Amino acid sequence: MSIVITGGAGFLGGLVTEALLERGGEEELVSLDLAPSAHTSPRVRSVVGDLADQGVLEEAVGPETTAIIHLAAVLSGGSEDDFDLSMHVNVDGTRALLERARTVSAGADAPLRFVATSSLAVFGGEVPSVVPSSWATQPDSTYGALKAVVELLVNEYSRKGFVDGRVCRLPTISVRPGRPNSAASSFASGIIREPLQGVESVCPVPHDTLMWLSAPRTAVTNLLHALDLPPEDLGSWRVMNIPGLTVSVGEMLETLGRVGGDVARSLVRDEPDARITAIVGSWPGAFEVDDLLERGFVRDESFAQMVQEYVEDHLAAP
Amino acid sequence: MSIVITGGAGFLGGLVTEALLERGGEEELVSLDLAPSAHTSPRVRSVVGDLADQGVLEEAVGPETTAIIHLAAVLSGGSEDDFDLSMHVNVDGTRALLERARTVSAGADAPLRFVATSSLAVFGGEVPSVVPSSWATQPDSTYGALKAVVELLVNEYSRKGFVDGRVCRLPTISVRPGRPNSAASSFASGIIREPLQGVESVCPVPHDTLMWLSAPRTAVTNLLHALDLPPEDLGSWRVMNIPGLTVSVGEMLETLGRVGGDVARSLVRDEPDARITAIVGSWPGAFEVDDLLERGFVRDESFAQMVQEYVEDHLAAP
Ligand SMILES: NC(=O)c1ccc[n+]([C@@H]2O[C@H](COP(=O)([O-])OP(=O)(O)OC[C@H]3O[C@@H](n4cnc5c(N)ncnc54)[C@H](O)[C@@H]3O)[C@@H](O)[C@H]2O)c1
Ligand SMILES: NC(=O)c1ccc[n+]([C@@H]2O[C@H](COP(=O)([O-])OP(=O)(O)OC[C@H]3O[C@@H](n4cnc5c(N)ncnc54)[C@H](O)[C@@H]3O)[C@@H](O)[C@H]2O)c1
Repeated sequence: MSIVITGGAGFLGGLVTEALLERGGEEELVSLDLAPSAHTSPRVRSVVGDLADQGVLEEAVGPETTAIIHLAAVLSGGSEDDFDLSMHVNVDGTRALLERARTVSAGADAPLRFVATSSLAVFGGEVPSVVPSSWATQPDSTYGALKAVVELLVNEYSRKGFVDGRVCRLPTISVRPGRPNSAASSFASGIIREPLQGVESVCPVPHDTLMWLSAPRTAVTNLLHALDLPPEDLGSWRVMNIPGLTVSVGEMLETLGRVGGDVARSLVRDEPDARITAIVGSWPGAFEVDDLLERGFVRDESFAQMVQEYVEDHLAAP
Repeated sequence: MSIVITGGAGFLGGLVTEALLERGGEEELVSLDLAPSAHTSPRVRSVVGDLADQGVLEEAVGPETTAIIHLAAVLSGGSEDDFDLSMHVNVDGTRALLERARTVSAGADAPLRFVATSSLAVFGGEVPSVVPSSWATQPDSTYGALKAVVELLVNEYSRKGFVDGRVCRLPTISVRPGRPNSAASSFASGIIREPLQGVESVCPVPHDTLMWLSAPRTAVTNLLHALDLPPEDLGSWRVMNIPGLTVSVGEMLETLGRVGGDVARSLVRDEPDARITAIVGSWPGAFEVDDLLERGFVRDESFAQMVQEYVEDHLAAP
C-alpha cells in the first residue's frame, strides 16, 4: 500500500509527508517531484521526474496505491511568467496523473482518493465581502485560470467514478518559511518572516486589505482531513473553500510589533504596488465555511498564534 | 481574408455560414468540420478533418484569417456516452485551435477574434430563479464540465492577448429542425417539431419546468454580434450569458395547440423521465441579461413567434 505525494519535495509536500509519517501506518509514502524528498525515513520513496511523463507516473502510481495527494504545480509567479510551462505542469501534468489514477482505479474495489489543491486566485474581479460556495471563478491570472481548470477536471473525473476526488481551495499560507518569491501573496509571509530575522521587508498593499490566511500546519491538517473524509460526507461538487482566518494587513503588522517589538515593526516599509494591490484586492477576504467546519475542517484561532507557530518551528533555539 | 467556422457542416455552423453569406463581404468562409459544408457558394471552402489535427488546422487557419467562429463540438449526449471523445474534441481540439490562432495572431496587428460557444450545462445543482453573471459553474455532466474548461481557456488566452475571445453561453435552441437526439434538451424542440408534422412526441418533464430558449436565427444574430463587438465593449471576463426567453413547458404546449390545433397538441404524451427532469431542472430558467441587451444582444419576443419561425423556415409550402 502506498500514498503518492506529488510535489513531495516542495513546501506543503514536505509538511504533508512529515504529518503522514507522524500519524504512523504501513503505507509507503511516494514523493513524485522534480527533486527528491528531503525526508530520509525508510517509509519514503522518491520518484524523481516530470509529473506529465508516463514512465514517471507508472513508477510512482500502481495497483498498490491507495491515495494521491497532488501538490506539484507551477505557482502564481511562475505561471504568469511562463504560460506554456504552467499549461504543461498544471493542466497536462494533472490530466496525466488523473488518467493514471483512472487506469489503476479500474482494477480496484473503489476509485483512488485524489486530493488536489486550488487557490483563491481562481477568483477575480469584484467579490463580495463574504464569498459563498456558489461564487463564480473568473480568474485574472494564468495560475488561477489553470487551477480552475484543474478543479473542473478533478470534479468531473470524480462524477464519472474514475477517481474519488477532493479539491481544497487553500487560503494564503502564512507564515511560510523560506525566501520571498514572485507570488503576489509573497508579502503575506515576508512582512512577518523577514523582520523577525532582522531583515527589511516591503508592504505593497494598503493596511485595510483583508487576507484569508492559514498557518502551514493547519493547511496540512485540512488536506489530510479531506483525504480521510468518506465519500458520502462530500457534496456532489467536490471543490471546497477551505477555512481560513480573516486578518487585515494592519492587524498583521500590529501582531508583528507585539511579537517582535518596535525594531521588527520598523523594518517594514510601505511601498504601494498597484499591480499587487489589484491582484490581492480581487482575492476574497472571507468565505462562508460553516458547512466545512461542521464536517471537521479547522482554522487558526488568531494571527498571533500563527506567528507563534512560525517562531517555534523556525526561529526558536533548539 | 477569411473567417473560419469550425463545425461549419453542423446545425448552427450552417446557419452562421448562411448569415455571413447574406451580409456580404469579401472574406472567404472556411468550414472546418468532419464533413463538408452544405453551402455551394464560391465564397465557401471546406476543410474536412479533425479539429485536433495540426495539418487540418494549418489548412484552415492562416495569416489570411481574420476571425474564428468555433462551433465544432461533441454535444451533451455524445459527451456523456464517450468521455474520451469529448476530451479529444471539446478540450484538445479547442486547445489546438487556440494555439493555432495564437501562432497566427503573433504575426498580426491584433489578436484574432475567436467566438466560442458554451451552454447552460455548465451550471448544476441548485440555481437561483434568475442567475447572475457571478454564479458558479458546477456542472454535472461531461459536456458541461468540458465547456466550462473551454470558457476558462478562451478567457485566459484573451487575457494574455493570444486571441481576442468571446464566449457565448447560448440558451437552449428551440425549435431546432431535424430529428430527436440524445441531448437531455432534445424534447425542447421535439414537443413542437414532431407534432407539427403529425408525429407523436414525449414530454419527459413537468409542465412548470422553466426553459431558457432562443430561436436558431436569434442565436446566430447574437453569435455574429459577439464577433462584431469591439474589444473595448467587452468586460475583462469574456464569457457572456446570451439572452433568451423564459418559457414554461406548459406555455410551450399551449402555443403548440394554438399554432397546430388540438390534433397536434394531442400528439404529445407525458412520460416523466427522472433523469432528464433532474438534468433540465438544474439548468437555469432565467438569467440577468440587462447588461448584454444594452450592449446590443437580442432575444426573441414570444414563443409563438419562435414556432412561427420554424413553420416558415421548414414547413411552409415553397
Ligand atoms: N503555499 C500556498 O500559499 C498555497 C496556497 C494555495 C494553494 N497552494 C497549492 O499547494 C500546492 C503546493 O504548494 P507549495 O507551496 O508546497 O509549492 P512548492 O513550489 O513549494 O512545491 C511545488 C512542488 O512541485 C514540484 N513540481 C513542479 N513542477 C513539477 C513537475 N513537472 N513534475 C513534478 N513535480 C513538479 C516542484 O519541484 C515543487 O517541489 C500547489 O499545488 C499550490 O498551487 C499553495
Ligand atoms: N444547439 C444548441 O441548443 C446549443 C446550445 C448551446 C451551445 N451549443 C453549441 O453550439 C455549437 C454548435 O452546435 P450545433 O447544435 O450546431 O451542433 P452540431 O452537432 O449540429 O454541429 C457540430 C459540428 O461539429 C462537428 N465536429 C464534431 N467533432 C469534430 C471534430 N473532431 N473536428 C471537426 N468537426 C467536428 C460535427 O461534424 C458537426 O458538424 C456547439 O459547440 C454546441 O455545443 C449548441
